[in-house]
Amino acid sequence: MTDQELGITESKEHSPGEWYAEVVQKAGVADYAPMGGFIVTRPRGYALWERLKNHLDGWFKETGVRNSYFPMFIPESYLEREKDIVEGFDPEVAWVTHGGHDELEERLAVRPTSESIIAPFIAQWVRSHRDLPMRLNQWCSVVRWEATETKPFFRTKEFLWQEGHTAHASAEDAWAETMTRLDQYERLYEEVMAIPGLKGRKPDHDKFPGAETTTTVEALMPDGKSVQASTSHHLGQSFAEAFDITYTDEDENERTAHTTSWGLSWRALGALIMTHSDDQGLVVPPKLAPTQVVVVPIWQADTETEVTEYAADLAAELDGEFRVEFDDRDERNPGFKFNEHELNGVPLRIEVGPNEVADGEATLVHRPDGESEVADREAVVDAVGDALDTVYAKLYAAAEETLEENVREAHGRGEILGTIGRHGGYVKTGWCGDEDCESVIKDEIAAEIVMLPLDEEVEPVHDTCGICEEPAEETAYFAKSY
Amino acid sequence: MTDQELGITESKEHSPGEWYAEVVQKAGVADYAPMGGFIVTRPRGYALWERLKNHLDGWFKETGVRNSYFPMFIPESYLEREKDIVEGFDPEVAWVTHGGHDELEERLAVRPTSESIIAPFIAQWVRSHRDLPMRLNQWCSVVRWEATETKPFFRTKEFLWQEGHTAHASAEDAWAETMTRLDQYERLYEEVMAIPGLKGRKPDHDKFPGAETTTTVEALMPDGKSVQASTSHHLGQSFAEAFDITYTDEDENERTAHTTSWGLSWRALGALIMTHSDDQGLVVPPKLAPTQVVVVPIWQADTETEVTEYAADLAAELDGEFRVEFDDRDERNPGFKFNEHELNGVPLRIEVGPNEVADGEATLVHRPDGESEVADREAVVDAVGDALDTVYAKLYAAAEETLEENVREAHGRGEILGTIGRHGGYVKTGWCGDEDCESVIKDEIAAEIVMLPLDEEVEPVHDTCGICEEPAEETAYFAKSY
Repeated sequence: MTDQELGITESKEHSPGEWYAEVVQKAGVADYAPMGGFIVTRPRGYALWERLKNHLDGWFKETGVRNSYFPMFIPESYLEREKDIVEGFDPEVAWVTHGGHDELEERLAVRPTSESIIAPFIAQWVRSHRDLPMRLNQWCSVVRWEATETKPFFRTKEFLWQEGHTAHASAEDAWAETMTRLDQYERLYEEVMAIPGLKGRKPDHDKFPGAETTTTVEALMPDGKSVQASTSHHLGQSFAEAFDITYTDEDENERTAHTTSWGLSWRALGALIMTHSDDQGLVVPPKLAPTQVVVVPIWQADTETEVTEYAADLAAELDGEFRVEFDDRDERNPGFKFNEHELNGVPLRIEVGPNEVADGEATLVHRPDGESEVADREAVVDAVGDALDTVYAKLYAAAEETLEENVREAHGRGEILGTIGRHGGYVKTGWCGDEDCESVIKDEIAAEIVMLPLDEEVEPVHDTCGICEEPAEETAYFAKSY
Repeated sequence: MTDQELGITESKEHSPGEWYAEVVQKAGVADYAPMGGFIVTRPRGYALWERLKNHLDGWFKETGVRNSYFPMFIPESYLEREKDIVEGFDPEVAWVTHGGHDELEERLAVRPTSESIIAPFIAQWVRSHRDLPMRLNQWCSVVRWEATETKPFFRTKEFLWQEGHTAHASAEDAWAETMTRLDQYERLYEEVMAIPGLKGRKPDHDKFPGAETTTTVEALMPDGKSVQASTSHHLGQSFAEAFDITYTDEDENERTAHTTSWGLSWRALGALIMTHSDDQGLVVPPKLAPTQVVVVPIWQADTETEVTEYAADLAAELDGEFRVEFDDRDERNPGFKFNEHELNGVPLRIEVGPNEVADGEATLVHRPDGESEVADREAVVDAVGDALDTVYAKLYAAAEETLEENVREAHGRGEILGTIGRHGGYVKTGWCGDEDCESVIKDEIAAEIVMLPLDEEVEPVHDTCGICEEPAEETAYFAKSY
């Protein structure tokens, strides 16, 4: 790469769409595939996904979930067994019609989601209450043939995700499961991705096909839009009835199970990149960064040996504790290296020059704000650990501040439209529960109800619906969304 | 499950095919999907695959490989760019022809292998010799529409695998890469799966489409057939030329790169299960076992408390060091538990009864041979570690003995046919290099040349071809194969 190729030319503030596409490509996160709607996830992007996955997968396993793998194709007749699923997904299914030179007798759907192929097996495996709860998960890719402009990780026809599918003896157990997963998604966002989430449920008209309740973690993007980062569905008994998932209880009675499904896709990766990155390139929290620390020696001809040795020794000491790169490339000057590591989102840069050697120190520079601190060489491991914690805290605090500033109250059609139009972000208002009231806002500025708070004890923010003035049943959060 | 459902009814010796299918299903490893050629990998099976994957992936990363993810669909025009690939795979491609309600302008192949979609990106990303070597890998599923009877992990239309794709500056570097991966596959077989492998190359007429050399690790199954467990291909410059993978060397000359690809599929899982399991069910080496140790308390009413407490305490001490299950289910008797854990392939069972409590001991029972040893309670962690090593060593020794007994020398059509017909296994013989001589054997008993030893210094085992009596060029290993 030349110096010029390293630089991000678009502005996050003024052209967020173009800026995002440029960061993703120049930082080696993803590229566009030849077919519209498909992307290639490059090593730096995939490494982020792997770490997200490892955190979440670990928590799943600690809480009774077992991984498995189901076929990527679903026979059309299986997809048709749950009527809401087929209505919901039929328009966006990719169909396999030929195997080799022969036409298939029955078309196969490339899975858009796997309830229809997993539920019949759960039905087979569950016999008695002792087999419950049954908790399965798979990490795989799914395909939804939506005709929209490609936006890496946000809008792609094929995407990577995990989908969990569980069966339980009671509605209460299924609801508790739905909440366990939602809490884990929120934890991933907050602890690992440094993004505060808003937990809630979707309005009834926007639920997952066949679900009783769809819950969501929403995250606010810097351009003022909301991202549905992950969803957890309480499916009630609709799938259990469609696929005969029954069990004998302790009194030998046959009962119908209650099921859930929940998923997090690589859209989380998009939210991560868009939230923290800046006009110098990628910014990622330390827990996810493939390289957490880069050590750059800075020398003149007469100090090369001592500086390089000191820096190499320091990098070696940090290695093992952290993911460290020692950048001693001869053919690049320090300025180029700084730019490159900033572009690639390394959270901490350690500069070592003749002064650091003379004083027995090291200079630690934080990404994203360039703040630097001097650490004693002897205490450098602790200092680096603290600096990485500080970088995380800065990222989280900035995202939290943005969120807090962008949840506004409004009442009345004009005020709601004006507030979202001027500021973006979320507008909370009383809502009567009628989809038509959402449509009034949606038709005008494409903002919709992205979330209803879960806590049903809390009174609505207004006594009356912010749109129709009928009595409000709950609080609705309106926002534009991805 | 009832006692009856636990038992394997088929015999490994007398009906190996039925026995294999029964073990896989009853031990909860896999089930048959509704579409012929597809299977569902259940949690116990997937846990084995995850551990295989983690070992191999760790070695890949230590040796410069970076994971990535490419689209699961390949446009037909891309597949056609390398002529050998399209000829090799066209008859077995699953085609997506419709997205939603619309017919696609260009058919999309569900990837049978990804050279054709990865190579064009490597071409884009490689510019200078500094970008080489470039080593990418992805863990994904692929589809090959072969019309054969389904055999879980051995013959399925969709299978999980990893596919590595690399580009290098020289043929030597590409060959070294090919060997590095072959050695890692062999290591996985030997160290993790407890199966000795036979390393070699495929005859020219059986190479991967477009490859210069295809190398293989072959493993002998107990029914006398060979399994091609993994392959590593030196692709020469055929893909680099077809997809324009070029780079500028240190003297600013434009050069064509040399590429490799290498893959290991879940067929390895099939080989694992078939090699070690027995008429009691699944047997797996300790490194792969989801549960390594099960602790079973054995008590009468008057000893319940002391035995259960002792056993629980012992299980708690082992936990953390090993993957431990404490089986204190009330509703099952010890005999049922023994059978179930044997079926599920737990390598070590610890029995604790009143005698063990009185003597401060624990009884360790090895799977697969039922050999038991008594360990001091105080030294139980070390004893369990040693016992697991012993279990591995027993499994490896048995597989090694089978392999050694089943490599035989033969010369002359009748002797080759007779030896394979009577014993199965491998027959090594001199070979002139002509495919016609293989056909003589293949047409008769469906045995083929599965491997040619790599070491070119070694003289052929016979001076003349075992079939045509012309001068022999090398040694060929004939076997029936999966």
